[in-house]
Amino acid sequence: MIREYFLNLEGVEENSSVPLDQVIENLAFNAEGLLPVVTQDADTRQVLMMAWMNKSALEKTLETNRVTYWSRSRNAFWIKGETSGHTQELVSLSFDCDGDTILCLVKQTGAACHTGRKHCFYLRADATEKVARINSQSFSEIQ
Amino acid sequence: MIREYFLNLEGVEENSSVPLDQVIENLAFNAEGLLPVVTQDADTRQVLMMAWMNKSALEKTLETNRVTYWSRSRNAFWIKGETSGHTQELVSLSFDCDGDTILCLVKQTGAACHTGRKHCFYLRADATEKVARINSQSFSEIQ
Repeated sequence: MIREYFLNLEGVEENSSVPLDQVIENLAFNAEGLLPVVTQDADTRQVLMMAWMNKSALEKTLETNRVTYWSRSRNAFWIKGETSGHTQELVSLSFDCDGDTILCLVKQTGAACHTGRKHCFYLRADATEKVARINSQSFSEIQ
Repeated sequence: MIREYFLNLEGVEENSSVPLDQVIENLAFNAEGLLPVVTQDADTRQVLMMAWMNKSALEKTLETNRVTYWSRSRNAFWIKGETSGHTQELVSLSFDCDGDTILCLVKQTGAACHTGRKHCFYLRADATEKVARINSQSFSEIQ
């Protein structure tokens, strides 16, 4: 799954840089032209949600510093918080070693989840009890 | 994209539980029978990697507490660290609000990334300079 472009980056020296448009051109967008995006709260480090970006959504996110996904259900840009006010201000955006995933660190306003919860991962598996427990706590609330 | 099963869970009271096998049966596996998995270091909270599980890999992970993915390139189970020794011991596993993503918190032994880095997200976009910078630092090193 590792493309040659990213394979060649593996040995590039720490702190050196490569043209951003070159990296973006080589990303491993899937058959629908999308990449999975993991979005994490820059303060609490809670993983908030997983969504998708196409190349244009990625470019919009980098230009505006407001996280913009591609909505697969609406087939349209999804500027996070545009209707709810629960915006995500971009703090940093990174690509992974094989160019098939994006990690965004954000300042989250309000709830990231459409259910009103701070994050989306609220169904916790308990393999011993063989149940999934409704658990909305974020790291910051546990600590 | 939200399936009725997960829609019905939205209003279920905090701390109550539902049968785990029922949740697993209703997960929104994609056309290849896979779900994206975000794996995060339970100590540093660094997002380590993104990979995929099918239903069997998910069940193996929950049974063994050793994170087991499905390798799309090898078309086989991928017990993380089986050859490298860089295992992931499961600390917690959660599903998201629409049952299409898994979040694993793990105790990571050694490097999570095949490049020898602690995590995979080492290409950081700098939109101002129009570059991607090689940056392997984890949160724990920045703090």
